[in-house]
Amino acid sequence: MSDDDQELGITESKSHNTGEWYAEVVQKAGLADYGPEGMSGFIVTRPRAYAVWERLQGFLDAKFKDTGVQNAYFPLFIPESYLEREKDIVEGFDPEVAWVTEAGNKELEERLAVRPTSESIITPYISQWVRSHRDLPLRVNQWCSVVRWEATETKPFFRTKEFLWQEGHTAHATAEGAWEETMTRLDQYASVYEDLLAMPVLKGQKPDHDKFPGAETTTTVEALMPDGKSVQAGTSHHLGQSFAEAFDITFSDEDEEERLAHTTSWGLSWRALGALIMTHSDEQGLVLPPGVAPEQVVVVPIWQEDTKDEVLEYAEGVVDDLDDAGIRVELDDRDERNPGFKFNEHELNGVPVRIEIGPHEVEDGELTLVHRPDGESVVEDRDGVAETVRDHFDEVYAKLYADAEETLDGEVREADDRADILGTLGQHGGYVKAPWCGDEECEEPIKEPMAAEIVMVPFDDEDPLADGDHDESCAICDDDAERTAYFAKSY
Amino acid sequence: MSDDDQELGITESKSHNTGEWYAEVVQKAGLADYGPEGMSGFIVTRPRAYAVWERLQGFLDAKFKDTGVQNAYFPLFIPESYLEREKDIVEGFDPEVAWVTEAGNKELEERLAVRPTSESIITPYISQWVRSHRDLPLRVNQWCSVVRWEATETKPFFRTKEFLWQEGHTAHATAEGAWEETMTRLDQYASVYEDLLAMPVLKGQKPDHDKFPGAETTTTVEALMPDGKSVQAGTSHHLGQSFAEAFDITFSDEDEEERLAHTTSWGLSWRALGALIMTHSDEQGLVLPPGVAPEQVVVVPIWQEDTKDEVLEYAEGVVDDLDDAGIRVELDDRDERNPGFKFNEHELNGVPVRIEIGPHEVEDGELTLVHRPDGESVVEDRDGVAETVRDHFDEVYAKLYADAEETLDGEVREADDRADILGTLGQHGGYVKAPWCGDEECEEPIKEPMAAEIVMVPFDDEDPLADGDHDESCAICDDDAERTAYFAKSY
Repeated sequence: MSDDDQELGITESKSHNTGEWYAEVVQKAGLADYGPEGMSGFIVTRPRAYAVWERLQGFLDAKFKDTGVQNAYFPLFIPESYLEREKDIVEGFDPEVAWVTEAGNKELEERLAVRPTSESIITPYISQWVRSHRDLPLRVNQWCSVVRWEATETKPFFRTKEFLWQEGHTAHATAEGAWEETMTRLDQYASVYEDLLAMPVLKGQKPDHDKFPGAETTTTVEALMPDGKSVQAGTSHHLGQSFAEAFDITFSDEDEEERLAHTTSWGLSWRALGALIMTHSDEQGLVLPPGVAPEQVVVVPIWQEDTKDEVLEYAEGVVDDLDDAGIRVELDDRDERNPGFKFNEHELNGVPVRIEIGPHEVEDGELTLVHRPDGESVVEDRDGVAETVRDHFDEVYAKLYADAEETLDGEVREADDRADILGTLGQHGGYVKAPWCGDEECEEPIKEPMAAEIVMVPFDDEDPLADGDHDESCAICDDDAERTAYFAKSY
Repeated sequence: MSDDDQELGITESKSHNTGEWYAEVVQKAGLADYGPEGMSGFIVTRPRAYAVWERLQGFLDAKFKDTGVQNAYFPLFIPESYLEREKDIVEGFDPEVAWVTEAGNKELEERLAVRPTSESIITPYISQWVRSHRDLPLRVNQWCSVVRWEATETKPFFRTKEFLWQEGHTAHATAEGAWEETMTRLDQYASVYEDLLAMPVLKGQKPDHDKFPGAETTTTVEALMPDGKSVQAGTSHHLGQSFAEAFDITFSDEDEEERLAHTTSWGLSWRALGALIMTHSDEQGLVLPPGVAPEQVVVVPIWQEDTKDEVLEYAEGVVDDLDDAGIRVELDDRDERNPGFKFNEHELNGVPVRIEIGPHEVEDGELTLVHRPDGESVVEDRDGVAETVRDHFDEVYAKLYADAEETLDGEVREADDRADILGTLGQHGGYVKAPWCGDEECEEPIKEPMAAEIVMVPFDDEDPLADGDHDESCAICDDDAERTAYFAKSY
């Protein structure tokens, strides 16, 4: 909606000033605005970004429903006494809680936490709903916002005091059932990134000292950003029996014995939007895979006065065909803008495929298709346009995925002592794999000088160091190595 | 999930103890639970109710998108100073606001309101986004929850301190544009009730003394409940220029003049779920129109040991056919329950169509379909089951609508003096139409003894009293009547 050509350009360099470049793309592509004065850390999610979130929601929610999850909605507030019932939760989140203390012109008797996560209010209800083994597994999910009052610099979709997410909570009769659930959700998160957002991810678990408060195991999908940092892109927690014990989830088993349930929780936030924008976008602006783009195709007719009618009529026919096929298409027939401006604007806004139609295309019964981001231009027949466009969507997706995969593959390096880890991280960023004894103390010598940490440890069955049958020693302390640690800087 | 047949029954009478009956249906059909201790007024929306809300969302959201609305998301909190910028808003909502005063272990410098409605935070952003007449109309909507700390008794979906809703906010170049928008949304709300929820509604406007704070006109859809009370079931506000002025929404028009915009806002909440449950449900439990039922069909096979295999195979084939056709179907093949228990349970849970399959049905290539709520039972051919079932959905919807319409038609009565209004309301409930001068004072003599009020006034072009060309006088004060007022008790 700007009146100035120059405002369309991204001026910051993606490779040199990644943070500034990101902020500029977010603002100029109309993805988010910053919160009002007095509310730093909050953002306004504008329609273009929200539409991407809705597509992600639709994709993930369908997977949830296909695998036995039901949506529900729990209160926004959690009484302080509830938050205190699981000690790890209260210790983990207390410093970040926003408290409601006055309401209806009165001071409240008990402070109410604006939910930072909902285990403490959902688990007591699960406890009421579960009586017999027949009620298990029980799976509920809610799409909502949560508030965590972190005092760091705001970065839209990455670091905000309020964020949108989904949180799933389940109860199971056995530890195995809970573990299977944990992995099902992790795989679904990986699919969001890989199949929808064209981003390869690493799957693994957090080191024990970085688990979710109260969890037995926290599993994670990690995505590599262009500045060499890792993003925790979705987490799925095997909570063991700590919440079941704190909130008394018991059930009578087939043998009539009363048993304690095993629970999980798992969440994916709008950080996925941030990671998406970061990964594919460029110095022309936003880049989106066709599956989540609010507008998948823009048709730009190019005319002179004497060719206007025929070009426009032809373009409208193309738009109708695409629209009938369920493709999200827009006709840009604005009179007051020239084609060059329009191209720039649609590139800025991340439209994956542009169709240019001029008198030549009309004459030859053809179309010129241009891909975002690489500008590849292909002439195709007008006939069968919907199918043709779908093929181009597949090509655009494949290009984005291949680029991201190539980057990721090149950014996993190995090291076997402290100097090597620090040197490799300092020079390249990315992930550095190193043998690790498993002690939190051995993260410190990396974390302290470099602000890098162990973002992931592969699962047992994918880690040759996990079976103990090797001679590797910890890259830091030289004790026996028990796991492979992935060190990285992180968001 | 209960182990006791008796728990399935609704014990309260819908006609005699409507409130208690409603609470019992909500609880026994698994629609909602009450909030935890210390949080009276809050509810937990359980999966069955949330699934209905999702269908309603899908229906309405598609209409919004077809008519130019984009979804977005704005912060949960509103700084106190923002809330104060539109004086009517702050006066209207201040007593009901929940305040965040502490966060991140610190006292906040400025209190933050948990949004009671979002005009005060959305309008300043609309102001930033609108520069030229080309940016208008601008329409954003959000699906979220809001908090209003009302001290009344909790009634799930009707009176809760937090509720789910959507709130749409638009800006227009002209008053006519804003008025058209107001009516478009009101018509869409009416369609939710009539076309999806099988509930006829009345459309009109609120009397001036009961408008939304700051609004020029508040339009409403009103639904009649079985206890004779009216529910304000959705409202759409023509805000005139008060918000545009308070938050400075100006635009440069085609003639380059700077002008002030005209705005609207409109909201529909989960009260629609409450009205739905109230209207159609009965003493067997929940009744749902097929369009919103989470399970539209349940197939109950009825077997003896020697017929089990063939009956079950036949039933599974029927389920597959329905599932393939996109019908939401469940097979109830539980061994541990008898058919009578299953029938009661699915009736309680509001499944619109039950298919019973026993050895006779298998032999004859037939099915027995049973409608909820009236228990009508019809034998149909097995072939073409999906189409047959869809026809029965239409029949069930038509029955529900016709019943509700007949009730509504019989519950609009006329009166022309105070005693008559009070007598008619006292004897019958429902709506009483009476000529009215337009003064708030003339509502008092009805409101004071009876807790009834003017819930609606027909639009000008539908009210013969609005043109001044008549001899009617106000039923209360005997001055000239200017409008027809609909008096009713209300939720």
